[in-house]
Amino acid sequence: MTDVTLSTTEATDLVARCLSANGCSKEVAADVANVIIAAESDGCPSHGLFRVPGYVASLRSGKVNGKARPQVETADDRNVVTVDGAGGFAPPALAAARSSLVELASKRGIAALSIINVFHFSALWTDLEPICEQGLCALAFTCYLPFVAPAGGSRPLFGTNPMAFGWPRPRDRPMIFDQASSVAARGEVMIAARDGRQMRPDVGLDASGQPTIDPNEILKGAMLPFGGYKGSGIALMVELLAGALIGEQFSFEAGLTDNQDGGPPRGGELVIAMEPSLLGGDDALEHAEKLFARMATQPNVRLPADRRYANRRRSEADGITVPKSVLKKVRSLLM
Amino acid sequence: MTDVTLSTTEATDLVARCLSANGCSKEVAADVANVIIAAESDGCPSHGLFRVPGYVASLRSGKVNGKARPQVETADDRNVVTVDGAGGFAPPALAAARSSLVELASKRGIAALSIINVFHFSALWTDLEPICEQGLCALAFTCYLPFVAPAGGSRPLFGTNPMAFGWPRPRDRPMIFDQASSVAARGEVMIAARDGRQMRPDVGLDASGQPTIDPNEILKGAMLPFGGYKGSGIALMVELLAGALIGEQFSFEAGLTDNQDGGPPRGGELVIAMEPSLLGGDDALEHAEKLFARMATQPNVRLPADRRYANRRRSEADGITVPKSVLKKVRSLLM
Repeated sequence: MTDVTLSTTEATDLVARCLSANGCSKEVAADVANVIIAAESDGCPSHGLFRVPGYVASLRSGKVNGKARPQVETADDRNVVTVDGAGGFAPPALAAARSSLVELASKRGIAALSIINVFHFSALWTDLEPICEQGLCALAFTCYLPFVAPAGGSRPLFGTNPMAFGWPRPRDRPMIFDQASSVAARGEVMIAARDGRQMRPDVGLDASGQPTIDPNEILKGAMLPFGGYKGSGIALMVELLAGALIGEQFSFEAGLTDNQDGGPPRGGELVIAMEPSLLGGDDALEHAEKLFARMATQPNVRLPADRRYANRRRSEADGITVPKSVLKKVRSLLM
Repeated sequence: MTDVTLSTTEATDLVARCLSANGCSKEVAADVANVIIAAESDGCPSHGLFRVPGYVASLRSGKVNGKARPQVETADDRNVVTVDGAGGFAPPALAAARSSLVELASKRGIAALSIINVFHFSALWTDLEPICEQGLCALAFTCYLPFVAPAGGSRPLFGTNPMAFGWPRPRDRPMIFDQASSVAARGEVMIAARDGRQMRPDVGLDASGQPTIDPNEILKGAMLPFGGYKGSGIALMVELLAGALIGEQFSFEAGLTDNQDGGPPRGGELVIAMEPSLLGGDDALEHAEKLFARMATQPNVRLPADRRYANRRRSEADGITVPKSVLKKVRSLLM
């Protein structure tokens, strides 16, 4: 497989043009292109250019409104910002509501952002990073399509349901983890299938419910939650927080209503932001640095996100490298 | 090993008398005895009578104030309830602040409870159940002593750091999971060591950092997070939420300051409560029942807490059964 290198600016511009050519407004195209290239640049190709055909498919099928204008609502007596994404992609909805969430959490100590009626196909760390850059710690949750079997089960029910947590750092970029409730991300299994690689034996089951290392069989069967029943509990929590709690679909409902165009399903996202100094942590950020320093005294222990930031520095300096086939596919969607 | 059966009332009374005899006020003794017997009754002996000697040791050493009066603070412009446990056990601090948290979350959609200066030795689900019974969904986090190595490491740094999540149900007791960030709970390893049983190979490392199935070696070495780096991320998150965020110690700091009396370390707890109808989930509880019903169509899939509630019904009908040696030990602490 031959790879091609392009600068992050070139890549962002290409993706934005591709989205615009397929019906996105300039603003939406820019917001979505930024998160796609952020993922690629941070070394997460399963949420990068590889996803562009899915985004485009959902625009072409008419499932997603590329010109949607998110509606943000706040109420003085509530500690909640709600945003209706109006059937568009998730990044513009978050962008529209972010400053309200940051303001509310900074003033009151804790606030929630409930995002509904969006199509989420991106990584969650890109949602949290700008919130944490404002000195807040934050959590985010989103559902997906039913690909993951509950612990003990053999049929898909939960989404891969990522949960992200971010913590601000005084002299560094935020510490952020963003982890699927499944052992592997869906995109990882898809990329392994494309590249003819096998998966680890704990990643999934075939359609008959038997463990398999063949990614093609897993795609027809079910993925497994990480850490057995504990990861399954987290997947269930994400369903409830990003579904029932905010008035959106569960992953299994998205599976029933989605038009199967290969793009993202409709769903919701919950973000919780907290201001340490209003919760008692007067010296919270410096205190946390002591814990991070302790971690660093053990060889082979890394802070979550360290690898992503290293990738980012490399990408900013040297550009991003993607398979030629992926780039060709994206370019073919320009018209 | 011979077992003894006693009613939950007898057991609660015994524990309360034992705590009172060792310096607890009547109120503190009752609050703590209730959570100890709730754990025993729900089928979790590692947080039951087995822990009484630890509670008593911490009273006898003077580390814990058995007569502490928790101080609850709220502020109109904040969405946070803070409680200073005044150096006592955690259950009375939570009991003192619970109604303020429930009121704030019910009115504003989301609220946080920050509990500091307490000694936490109990299960978290008992903290969440009464909050969920008020129709709120809730999260809880607490640190412990440094027993768990971060992913990639070999030396203890994190606590076993449980995280609990609860969801109210219209016609049933709440769905609640309460899971350590480690593969096993500390008490499980201690009980296996006592009973001469081996652990699974992923539970821990010996003092030289090598995997071992000997619980005695694990107690001298390090426990492992569940699900590799993902469970390690959650353990780190719990440190930050129940430590730095609210102005309390990390587990490794508790390890440095604790007097090693075998009782609980000083630490904090963060509870977040949310009211679904104020976050957009107008029909959230009935909606969630649909997901639970879907789970139930798969054989061998259980809701978290189902087994606990089954145990509770059995305990309420038939009493609780504990090893004679445990009961003897508790009785010996009565004077």
